[in-house]
Amino acid sequence: MAVVDFWFDFASSYSYIAAMRIEDEAERAGVRVRWRAFLLGPIFAAKGLVDSPFNLDPAKGAYMWRDLERLSEKHALAWRKPSVFPRSSVAAARIGAAFADEPWLPAFARAVFRLNFVEDAAIDALDGLQDAVVAAGGPADAAARAQQDPLKTALRAANDEAVARGLFGAPSFTVGAPPGTELFWGGDRMADAFAWASRHER
Amino acid sequence: MAVVDFWFDFASSYSYIAAMRIEDEAERAGVRVRWRAFLLGPIFAAKGLVDSPFNLDPAKGAYMWRDLERLSEKHALAWRKPSVFPRSSVAAARIGAAFADEPWLPAFARAVFRLNFVEDAAIDALDGLQDAVVAAGGPADAAARAQQDPLKTALRAANDEAVARGLFGAPSFTVGAPPGTELFWGGDRMADAFAWASRHER
Repeated sequence: MAVVDFWFDFASSYSYIAAMRIEDEAERAGVRVRWRAFLLGPIFAAKGLVDSPFNLDPAKGAYMWRDLERLSEKHALAWRKPSVFPRSSVAAARIGAAFADEPWLPAFARAVFRLNFVEDAAIDALDGLQDAVVAAGGPADAAARAQQDPLKTALRAANDEAVARGLFGAPSFTVGAPPGTELFWGGDRMADAFAWASRHER
Repeated sequence: MAVVDFWFDFASSYSYIAAMRIEDEAERAGVRVRWRAFLLGPIFAAKGLVDSPFNLDPAKGAYMWRDLERLSEKHALAWRKPSVFPRSSVAAARIGAAFADEPWLPAFARAVFRLNFVEDAAIDALDGLQDAVVAAGGPADAAARAQQDPLKTALRAANDEAVARGLFGAPSFTVGAPPGTELFWGGDRMADAFAWASRHER
């Protein structure tokens, strides 16, 4: 079965929409998805940005918030504009990276996205994250263990992988490993990524 | 018939793909397109950027060039990576803005895009632009007249309109005038813009 890596940041508004859509779309396309949490912050910081591009550029920011309203309606997804943006996503991302291959990870990830973009709640409280892990079917100590060595290094490795694949935004989709990685940026390109994987990966 | 404004910069690689696709897509959607040339340069300069974001961010640039290859193949369009990017598009944009409502304008615009992204040729030579106008069915003096008052002010007015509609990139699509403008950014959102216009504009 062809595999697509789905790269997301729990702080990213467009990642929320993609996370909610991707399993249905993948099933239709006959593709398997690997959920890959990473952090946009260090990638933005490396090019000198001190905040989200949506905060630094008022026109782009205004567009994004309106677009999210429209996209939520189009895909019949709940949506509330978060009162804090971007929220600190490092604690949740450490869980995502440390347990990337666990069967409960996608349900956990969707729960965190709902906290941020439906409940307008913080996503860096360990007890809330732990509740989300357990509700998704994961072990009771996962959230805490992911914040410490050796598991916390998984997020750094994921970010290194993201950079090696040319990522500069989220959500992104990749097919294959370097040097032959095909990168697709933005939720609008999800179907293109699946089609590419189906044609080129067997 | 519902109307969508199609905002493009002749220097913009993604605008090329959109320009080549839009008439077929509009016909299928039953929507009328107004071709609106404008300049991204002053909009980027106003936020402190001294070059195209694709040149300033190597990862984003590398992605864009690969993506253009894929999109050209997907839409069966000719494509050659230009040896100069972004090319000066002010002379061509003045023609586009001054003659925005002329029936020959879309054919002229496509010819200029082919010069830039298929022929890898300059798009600021007045004789080449004039040839493109005439080949599209326009008057022999249009290219020269558009560079002078009173016609040259049309481009400044178009850019003011673009800013008033919240534009920050190209291609973009707008439905309606401020304060109720709906903005869609990126060629991937063309169908969304058409659907919006069909539902909301009669």
